[in-house]
Amino acid sequence: MPRIEANTIAQTNSTGYPPAHAALVGGRWVRRLGQAAGLSDFGVSQVMLKPGAASSQRHWHEDEDEFVVMLAGEAVLVEDGSRTAMRPGDMAAFPKGEPNGHHLVNESDADCLFLAFGRPPLGDCHYADIDMVWTGGSYRRTDGSDF
Amino acid sequence: MPRIEANTIAQTNSTGYPPAHAALVGGRWVRRLGQAAGLSDFGVSQVMLKPGAASSQRHWHEDEDEFVVMLAGEAVLVEDGSRTAMRPGDMAAFPKGEPNGHHLVNESDADCLFLAFGRPPLGDCHYADIDMVWTGGSYRRTDGSDF
Repeated sequence: MPRIEANTIAQTNSTGYPPAHAALVGGRWVRRLGQAAGLSDFGVSQVMLKPGAASSQRHWHEDEDEFVVMLAGEAVLVEDGSRTAMRPGDMAAFPKGEPNGHHLVNESDADCLFLAFGRPPLGDCHYADIDMVWTGGSYRRTDGSDF
Repeated sequence: MPRIEANTIAQTNSTGYPPAHAALVGGRWVRRLGQAAGLSDFGVSQVMLKPGAASSQRHWHEDEDEFVVMLAGEAVLVEDGSRTAMRPGDMAAFPKGEPNGHHLVNESDADCLFLAFGRPPLGDCHYADIDMVWTGGSYRRTDGSDF
């Protein structure tokens, strides 16, 4: 089937975040469409956020670009000093190395759905609102200590 | 502005195809959103097809994955032996190296709009319906002769 039948692809709300920082993404349900379709150049994830859930902790990547497009519902794109409503068809790009943490938060009363594109993170990822960094393949506090 | 204002980005219907094969994409209008937004890991193009236009000649890439998601209107995804209606929210993935030529054709009476993702083609690209191949940085006939 050339057209992707997303509903046939496994959906997960698992996270590798330390328990102290996991609750924010408990209502984030992800389907790894690109991987399921055999793509390797970049990842494509369908992300559904339940009311109150966020796409991630607010973060920015040193070495990976990201791109999102809203498909249904509404979310708020939060960055340093800005809040932007994202509705179906709205898009945002996050070039690697720009130190402006971002995430999408579903502040509405209904589910929202978007696609997220990016390569698997190999470089460091910095978190704007919490004492956490992704470095060397694991989450650590900014002083280098383990969770 | 974190949200992409697509209407502010230049739109082009130019093509590098030889004149004999260019008419099919004359009504294809492209905005290179990823490039405009500073992304380099992968390309993101917003593509509008006028009625009768196609996304490309039907093709497959040896070395680049592709992904499309429909945003508005309707197109037909044509592959070897299949025709699939693509409507808003529908997606398709084309893993590199699968020798099944694909393109989207707007057979409706209204414009359609989709996003296309992929890296710039470096490897060979094969065309299913015409005597053409992209190889070594240019379009040639399959016998290697120039257009």
